[in-house]
Amino acid sequence: MVDAATIAQAYIETWNESNPQQRMAVLDRHWTRDATYVDPLMRGDGAAQISGLVGAVHERFPGFRFRLTGKPDGHGDYVRLSWSLGPDGTVPPIEGSDVVRLRDGRICSVIGFIDRAPTA
Amino acid sequence: MVDAATIAQAYIETWNESNPQQRMAVLDRHWTRDATYVDPLMRGDGAAQISGLVGAVHERFPGFRFRLTGKPDGHGDYVRLSWSLGPDGTVPPIEGSDVVRLRDGRICSVIGFIDRAPTA
Repeated sequence: MVDAATIAQAYIETWNESNPQQRMAVLDRHWTRDATYVDPLMRGDGAAQISGLVGAVHERFPGFRFRLTGKPDGHGDYVRLSWSLGPDGTVPPIEGSDVVRLRDGRICSVIGFIDRAPTA
Repeated sequence: MVDAATIAQAYIETWNESNPQQRMAVLDRHWTRDATYVDPLMRGDGAAQISGLVGAVHERFPGFRFRLTGKPDGHGDYVRLSWSLGPDGTVPPIEGSDVVRLRDGRICSVIGFIDRAPTA
C-alpha cells in the first residue's frame, strides 16, 4: 500500500523547487526518468521536460507556492491529491487535483485537473 | 477534445446495466476490449472482467443506482467524473470520483477513488 501523504509531499516539493539543479535532484529521487505529466494546459514526457514545466510555472508566477489541500489518499500504485497555488498570505487563486501513478515507489505518471482558476 | 459529458454518461450507463448481455453490448460500444479498471476494492482487466465487477456490485447492492454528481470535465484523452451510489429516493450512502482514459474515443482505463462510504 502506498503512503499517500509521503508521495503527495514529494510531489508538491517538486513543484515548489525553483532551482533547476535541485529540482532535477528531487525528480531523480521521487520520479522515474521516463515519467509523464499531463494537465489541461501542459504536457511533459520525461524528467527533463517535467522540470521545464515546473520552471515555466515559477517564471509565470514568481513567489507563488503550491500547498496540499485536503488529505491525499491512494490505493495500490495510485495517489490522488488536491493542491492550491498562490502567493503567501492570500487566498490561492488556483486549485487543482492530480492523480499520480507509481512504479517501484516512484512517480511515473500524473494526470492533472484544474478545480478553480481565474477566468480573466 | 473529449466530450466529457458523453463519456461520463456512457460510463455510468455501464455501471447501471444489470443485464449481463446488455452490459457486454454497452462495453463493446464504449470501452476497448482490453480496458482496465482499478479502485480501492476491485480490479478488472478486460471487458469481461469489468462486466463481472459491475455484476458483483448489482448482486451486493440490489436496487442501487449510480448517478453522476457535479459536472464531468476533461482534457485530451482524460475525463474525470464524480458519482453517487444508492437506492432511489435516499441520500446515496456511497460516493466516488473516477478518472477515465480514452483511446480512439473509447474508455481504455479507469482509476477509481471512494469519496464517502459507510464506515460500518
